[in-house]
Amino acid sequence: MKYIIGMDIGTTAAKGVLYDLNGQMIISASRGYPLIQRKLGQAEEDPQVILDAVQKIIFKLAEKVQGEVAAISWSSQMHSLIGLGKNYEILTNSITWADNRCTNIVEEAKKNGLAQKIYHTTGMPIYPMAPIYKLMWLKQSNPNLFHQVQKWIGIKEYIIFRLTGKIMIDTTMAAGTGMLNLKTLSLDQDLLQKAGIAADQLPDLASPTEIVGSVSTEYVQKLGISADTKIVLGASDGYLSTIGVDAVDENHFALNVGTSGAVRTISPQAQVDQDARYFCYPASKRQFLLGGPINNGGIVLDWARQTLTLLNEKATVKDFLRLAKSAQVGSNGLIFLPYLGGERAPIWDANARGSFVGLTRQHTKADMARAVIEGIIFNLYDAATGLIESTKKPAAINATGGFMQSDLIRQTCADIFDVPIVTMKEQQSGSLAAMFLARQALGLNKNVDEIGRFVEKGKVYYPNQKEAAIYQKMFPLYREIKNDLAASYQKFRDINTI
Amino acid sequence: MKYIIGMDIGTTAAKGVLYDLNGQMIISASRGYPLIQRKLGQAEEDPQVILDAVQKIIFKLAEKVQGEVAAISWSSQMHSLIGLGKNYEILTNSITWADNRCTNIVEEAKKNGLAQKIYHTTGMPIYPMAPIYKLMWLKQSNPNLFHQVQKWIGIKEYIIFRLTGKIMIDTTMAAGTGMLNLKTLSLDQDLLQKAGIAADQLPDLASPTEIVGSVSTEYVQKLGISADTKIVLGASDGYLSTIGVDAVDENHFALNVGTSGAVRTISPQAQVDQDARYFCYPASKRQFLLGGPINNGGIVLDWARQTLTLLNEKATVKDFLRLAKSAQVGSNGLIFLPYLGGERAPIWDANARGSFVGLTRQHTKADMARAVIEGIIFNLYDAATGLIESTKKPAAINATGGFMQSDLIRQTCADIFDVPIVTMKEQQSGSLAAMFLARQALGLNKNVDEIGRFVEKGKVYYPNQKEAAIYQKMFPLYREIKNDLAASYQKFRDINTI
Ligand SMILES: Nc1ncnc2c1ncn2[C@@H]1O[C@H](COP(=O)(O)OP(=O)(O)OP(=O)(O)O)[C@@H](O)[C@H]1O
Ligand SMILES: Nc1ncnc2c1ncn2[C@@H]1O[C@H](COP(=O)(O)OP(=O)(O)O)[C@@H](O)[C@H]1O
Repeated sequence: MKYIIGMDIGTTAAKGVLYDLNGQMIISASRGYPLIQRKLGQAEEDPQVILDAVQKIIFKLAEKVQGEVAAISWSSQMHSLIGLGKNYEILTNSITWADNRCTNIVEEAKKNGLAQKIYHTTGMPIYPMAPIYKLMWLKQSNPNLFHQVQKWIGIKEYIIFRLTGKIMIDTTMAAGTGMLNLKTLSLDQDLLQKAGIAADQLPDLASPTEIVGSVSTEYVQKLGISADTKIVLGASDGYLSTIGVDAVDENHFALNVGTSGAVRTISPQAQVDQDARYFCYPASKRQFLLGGPINNGGIVLDWARQTLTLLNEKATVKDFLRLAKSAQVGSNGLIFLPYLGGERAPIWDANARGSFVGLTRQHTKADMARAVIEGIIFNLYDAATGLIESTKKPAAINATGGFMQSDLIRQTCADIFDVPIVTMKEQQSGSLAAMFLARQALGLNKNVDEIGRFVEKGKVYYPNQKEAAIYQKMFPLYREIKNDLAASYQKFRDINTI
Repeated sequence: MKYIIGMDIGTTAAKGVLYDLNGQMIISASRGYPLIQRKLGQAEEDPQVILDAVQKIIFKLAEKVQGEVAAISWSSQMHSLIGLGKNYEILTNSITWADNRCTNIVEEAKKNGLAQKIYHTTGMPIYPMAPIYKLMWLKQSNPNLFHQVQKWIGIKEYIIFRLTGKIMIDTTMAAGTGMLNLKTLSLDQDLLQKAGIAADQLPDLASPTEIVGSVSTEYVQKLGISADTKIVLGASDGYLSTIGVDAVDENHFALNVGTSGAVRTISPQAQVDQDARYFCYPASKRQFLLGGPINNGGIVLDWARQTLTLLNEKATVKDFLRLAKSAQVGSNGLIFLPYLGGERAPIWDANARGSFVGLTRQHTKADMARAVIEGIIFNLYDAATGLIESTKKPAAINATGGFMQSDLIRQTCADIFDVPIVTMKEQQSGSLAAMFLARQALGLNKNVDEIGRFVEKGKVYYPNQKEAAIYQKMFPLYREIKNDLAASYQKFRDINTI
């Protein structure tokens, strides 16, 4: 039994990677699933469909090595919520982090101080993604259903339950519920009460490297694995994609930007922010994941590519980058706020909108294109500054994701952050780290910093002094404009909903 | 002698129109001249070159009717300044309204309250265009030259001086110096002192319908006119293009938008604004021209046409309007501030810049195009609201200029102003009104409201209730964003000049 599977349960797809016992990737497979968005603000998924996808992926990977799988370990999207009934039957879909029907609950909690209390107690930002707010919303909007539910779990807990019969949650995923006390690393009684549930309605807590058990006979067959294959509990994608790029302490930040993005680091202490800009999710008593998730990554680049460039033909990302590169560093003083899809970190405002500010007649389309890229990166840096203030300026930033795949963007990141950007050979940092958890569970590795052996780094982009100086002059103005416009977003919403 | 010439001395060209005694246009002619912009902020013209252009135009028009010209009357750009020496020789170029080298003087005057005093005494907005500020600047920066000058005059006064030997200024042009007291309609001694000059260094004051005299023998020949041709003093282009579209009282606003633009009306009383948003220039004791000049008219449309549309091919204005029209009224809640060239009315900030605010991923290029048009018009409306607050909502707005030549723009104006937009058959309202002054001088007309007989109106665009309601909801947000960003413009300048 010489193989390990790292499974990542993402928001739009599940991806599985098969590794050998040296941590070398053998093959990977993925399957997408749809978001259910029938009502305004709804963003649900069918747990059964996800289980099915996971099953097919594992079967495919295991088949390649005749079922010789020592362990399966998990990386997962955070903040999902599923209600199980008396007989563990499914009473709800998986309500994902992207579902924002509890916005009003959060607004109310902001006013009466509960939201601030939740942030300071659990490290959960003031935003509708957290299960604690979803529970309050369900209790209010659908009390019958709410009282029928015996167990509240997330998608990873559901999958593992179906495979093993055990209902368990790891610390990093529990942190994502908004009910895990940062100090005690146990469920906060007071917040459970506010959510209207009892502690035994949530899964048992364990460490990410916990071996949950073996797979039920039914699934041994369905997955094409051995009866001895161990199921390791695994952790949140946020935590794993951070350690998965060898960012295991405050000296390194992990910057992952695809469609959306996140900047994260790991601190030895729990930290919360005066302005609630970043989350703090515990992984253990010695590891706290600090970071900010960002809505507006490559998706904004895609918008700008389609909107600012040619009318008829479709411009490629490369065309757009070439256009942007033809403008000067600093886009001739044009500033772009990238909040096209509202924003989480660092402003946590779902109503936020994008802006170009500072246009003169001298500005060209190329300036606008470059400003878009610089604006996306200013926002990443803005989210990171909260972390830097609370920890320290990192020695390097380890970068992954589709948006980080161009020279122009990597160099601009180095210049704006004024920190070297280290690229990664492998982008699947979540599955890699899930595999590493399995190695720890199997006793093949001990400390988290041993993960570096499995992480292959690529080209490093160093900051240029001249460009860094330009951005250091621009960034305070970016922030000022961000503040100037902050109060207007609510009014944009009011105008549009009338 | 059955013809009258209306001459308009513009910033970029002089235009002359030959009318018969019924006010029918016979022919017109024009000649351009260059702006001299060798130093930062400089915007001068050579008075000799302008005189030459005027001479050639008049010759051409007079030739058509064998010199049978009863009178020549004048419309002129405002705020120009020329210094004449002891022997009336030219010591300076014509320093135009667009020259902003006295910006620091204005900033200083703002701080010590002099600028506010000038505004309240003379109706001259707080902006570097006025000769009073230019005089202070010249005295400081070039005292030798300053003390050599015997007479300070403007371009119209110079041309008339060269033709007739008389140095005279009409009330509307004197108002443009920033030294004419609104209450007394005479030069303000206190302000003359502040400018460092004596009253006899400025031309004698007279009414726009004053007959200055006949043309010197030398110029009778050069112009190809009769020795009996009368030179009528004429007035400022601002005043004349207002009465020239039959906007002779507060019931009508004149909206002229070409590259730049202005909104104006005529009030029977002097009025100044708490926020100094509009100018108040007297024409007589019963007529005060209130209004706001706007930098960002069609020139912003031209920028957007080139910047937002195709990369390689040049899109035409029509293409751009078609694109804009394909978006919904209100541009899906996207707001554009059009201050690409700094702005005069209503914000009077030379550092102001343009912005798109409120972008979401749903916004298309068409939304951006429409937002540009709506933003230009919001700004015109914003400038007009100062007037409306001080006078009243007009019954109609009489519109001229290249920017006002499309259905989409006219209808959008009607909807945003919520007032009917009346188009004019003839765009040369300045020369027409100059001709009317000559008719008054010759005793052919008496009251200014008789000008209506010579003004032919075109199609009227009435506001649509539904669209007007959308804009009334958006306009407060436009204004809020305008205020939100006001303080940032200075900082944009600071960033760029470092
Ligand atoms: N060469 C490139 N340079 C910069 N950005 C690029 C490049 N190629 C693609 N992108 C951007 O990367 C984004 C997709 O990245 P990726 O495939 O990592 O996304 P994803 O996995 O869907 O996102 P997420 O990690 O947020 O779920 C697109 O928005 C695209 O615009
Ligand atoms: N059909 C049109 N609709 C709207 N704007 C137009 C149209 N045609 C030209 N323009 C705009 O009008 C402006 C020129 O107006 P014009 O009155 O000729 O200018 P000027 O102020 O230089 O005399 C240009 O900026 C151009 O973009």
